Amino acid sequence: MDLQQSGLPNTAFIHPQGKNQADVAQLVQQVVDLLLGEMGTAAERSPLPQLTRLPSHNIPNEGIPEAELLAQLKSIIQQSMNAAHPGYIGHMDSIPSTASILGDLVAGAMNNNMLSVEMSPVLSRLEPLLLKEIAAMFGLPETAGGVLVSGGSLGNLQAIAVARNIHFPIREKGLAGLPKPPVFFTSAAAHTSFQKAAMVLGLGSEATIGVTTDDRGKLDCGALQVAIAQAKQAGQAPFAVVATAGTTVTGTIDPIEEMAAIAQKHNLWFHVDASYGGALAFSPQHQHLLQGIEQADSITFNPQKWLYVAKTCAMTLFRDAKGWQRNFRVGAPYMGNEDDAMNLGEVSLQGTRHGDVLKLWMTLQHLGKAGCAAMIEQNFAIAQVFLTSIQQRPYLKLATKPDMNIICFRSEPELLPTEQWDQWNSKLQDHLLQQADCFVSLPLYQGQRWLKVVLVNPFTAVTHLATLFEVLDECHANLSEFTPA
Amino acid sequence: MDLQQSGLPNTAFIHPQGKNQADVAQLVQQVVDLLLGEMGTAAERSPLPQLTRLPSHNIPNEGIPEAELLAQLKSIIQQSMNAAHPGYIGHMDSIPSTASILGDLVAGAMNNNMLSVEMSPVLSRLEPLLLKEIAAMFGLPETAGGVLVSGGSLGNLQAIAVARNIHFPIREKGLAGLPKPPVFFTSAAAHTSFQKAAMVLGLGSEATIGVTTDDRGKLDCGALQVAIAQAKQAGQAPFAVVATAGTTVTGTIDPIEEMAAIAQKHNLWFHVDASYGGALAFSPQHQHLLQGIEQADSITFNPQKWLYVAKTCAMTLFRDAKGWQRNFRVGAPYMGNEDDAMNLGEVSLQGTRHGDVLKLWMTLQHLGKAGCAAMIEQNFAIAQVFLTSIQQRPYLKLATKPDMNIICFRSEPELLPTEQWDQWNSKLQDHLLQQADCFVSLPLYQGQRWLKVVLVNPFTAVTHLATLFEVLDECHANLSEFTPA
Repeated sequence: MDLQQSGLPNTAFIHPQGKNQADVAQLVQQVVDLLLGEMGTAAERSPLPQLTRLPSHNIPNEGIPEAELLAQLKSIIQQSMNAAHPGYIGHMDSIPSTASILGDLVAGAMNNNMLSVEMSPVLSRLEPLLLKEIAAMFGLPETAGGVLVSGGSLGNLQAIAVARNIHFPIREKGLAGLPKPPVFFTSAAAHTSFQKAAMVLGLGSEATIGVTTDDRGKLDCGALQVAIAQAKQAGQAPFAVVATAGTTVTGTIDPIEEMAAIAQKHNLWFHVDASYGGALAFSPQHQHLLQGIEQADSITFNPQKWLYVAKTCAMTLFRDAKGWQRNFRVGAPYMGNEDDAMNLGEVSLQGTRHGDVLKLWMTLQHLGKAGCAAMIEQNFAIAQVFLTSIQQRPYLKLATKPDMNIICFRSEPELLPTEQWDQWNSKLQDHLLQQADCFVSLPLYQGQRWLKVVLVNPFTAVTHLATLFEVLDECHANLSEFTPA
Repeated sequence: MDLQQSGLPNTAFIHPQGKNQADVAQLVQQVVDLLLGEMGTAAERSPLPQLTRLPSHNIPNEGIPEAELLAQLKSIIQQSMNAAHPGYIGHMDSIPSTASILGDLVAGAMNNNMLSVEMSPVLSRLEPLLLKEIAAMFGLPETAGGVLVSGGSLGNLQAIAVARNIHFPIREKGLAGLPKPPVFFTSAAAHTSFQKAAMVLGLGSEATIGVTTDDRGKLDCGALQVAIAQAKQAGQAPFAVVATAGTTVTGTIDPIEEMAAIAQKHNLWFHVDASYGGALAFSPQHQHLLQGIEQADSITFNPQKWLYVAKTCAMTLFRDAKGWQRNFRVGAPYMGNEDDAMNLGEVSLQGTRHGDVLKLWMTLQHLGKAGCAAMIEQNFAIAQVFLTSIQQRPYLKLATKPDMNIICFRSEPELLPTEQWDQWNSKLQDHLLQQADCFVSLPLYQGQRWLKVVLVNPFTAVTHLATLFEVLDECHANLSEFTPA
């Protein structure tokens, strides 16, 4: 097909015999220059820019000129969430490693398909081997294995689906005939993806029983024992316990080891949602915080969060890989089969899948374990500075004592009536963005609005934090000017 | 943090103040040069190269030198599935558009998160607007909307989950208490993701009732009516009918319009899996093949297949967007809320998600509707050439008369006993790869092995097909040398 004769831009595809080499190279260069220019000046834009103009969602009949496409792309970048800014500290969305950006570029161009080995001969073999290495870092045995999934919600869904399938004979016949409704236990502060998983899996969102937490925000093991007994008494069928290593709002790590023992005592599946905290396995200094995770039946871990891999990059690991595959597999007879490797699309929620393993592999090869550890340790150090700054200010209150580099706090000024504190903190979020160039988030936690920071950006320096606290102090000093809406 | 003092490569991240600009630009340039070099010579490698050496899955303690990383990357590209080769015609995996490769690059670097509007202010607003445009192209009404998902299996899972939630009051309480087991109907040739969806959703894989097909491979509407009646009689609760627009093996389009009428008559949800064939909506000449799709309650459509967008890029569209959101939504109180837009992570299977909309948007802006149409029409033209070549050869048999650009056929040589035909066609697959530089796939269809081609690559020319048929003729002429294993 002659692209141009058909009215297509000459650069529509990379010609496999190099016939449009110069044109393609020029277009790619323009996008790369634009991108590096914008990312290399990220600190000059707001961490969360104002939206000024959306790109047109109209699909044109004829393609638009490349110059216009580039201009629109620039406008998109400049208005998007600016996670590369050192003051972007509001969510678990990190600046991506260069290696992961480039891995995504290559994976996209190769367009291999993780559905089957035939469609991704290298990457479908690399993924299970690399994930086995990571499983070993968590202390899982030689029998362990796992699969990458497009995000942590799918990671948790994959784990709970397998746990359910192993505990109940429902793969073919479904849940409708079950005498007792299955339930599982998480902390009340666990991620909402467990309620979503329970809904999707046909268990119903109420099958996620949220156990109360102690004053550190950690699941209360006594309450867990009571909840299990109550569920049995109520005619429910408990099948799993979930510990969280790094809750979304406060970054709290549940008592993993104690929970593992309770799960084992009751013959329940033990899942650890280490979507965020799993990165601690890369830090010799801090990995002890995950103590007990080696007893997990399954683990969710997202390198897309604290391991700096561009999203999505998440995984579910299973202690018994064969058990997972046996209890989940749906065959696809249109794919080739290889003797030495598994078609991953048959044993995971997804079929066609992007080669996310490449950006994970490239990041780990480029930074090494020691590089990851260095960043994690620096994050802990700066979190300590942040924590101390809070503790020095009587008007600031911590939601919980932090376990990691996530700190949730709020201003509780005595001069304001308590019912105005939510609004006041919302106001502070605005001020911090406008005056300190810092984006902090404003989660709802135990019915109140808090300010949350996730100190994961390696370029966030003590000076940025100093500005943030200066603005907070100033706001507090000018409290009398505050008028609630 | 000083990256190098901490033992990290200076290029680990793109410094937000440009402090490592030159080093990063050099690394990016090296990867771009490597990539364009390999993609621009894709026709010189095999469409499916031999695997010679896997990259190391060992995670090094110190990062490896960039020169070594680049060498390994080159080796990975050279051994991977080579979908850009004009002879790669075996699966629905197309050569990706340049715009989609670049869109992925930018989305990866921005690292925005489709979980919430706050985390992707532009892309979370653009996605619903663009999908509404596409829904309109399918003839869905103004009430329609949709969401991107990471692959077609998730697209179908999302649709069936919503259909289930709307038909049964099980969101909170689950399926365990339901008096009648829910079932839904697909053609026997529908994609295995429906069995997977039924298993995941707790319906059980047997809840997918595969209705027999006619001699064109299309769902038999008489048989569907019987199946619905039988299910009701057996105490099951039918809730959905699924039509496929482009089956995986033969590219067959079910009688959509007739099935829509049956679904409506029985008050069943009507889903169309147009993962592949949905692209026809972009072809004024061929869109009539989708007649009836405008009556769907939900549609899966994957631009990652026949719209040339790098994977993953798939969507679920709903006729009644509000109904979908109301019956699926799980709130996430840690995210900000915007008045004008929805947090997509609350209404879809996934939470954190890559900004796939950018590469879809860029592809459509770059190629335009007319460009997409031109490619689809050229694909039909070359498929016609392929079809004629088969029909000219008495030893070749079609699985079904093709509806689109997917052709499934096999050699049935009279000289060989029928029980050797599967092996013979497997041999032909090898010969075509080795001697014609063509990768065709070898699906199992109705208990037999077939050769399947998907003529989607715009650079596949009549000369490639001529070589393929020459090799087939030669193999047939030398049939006597064949010794089955």
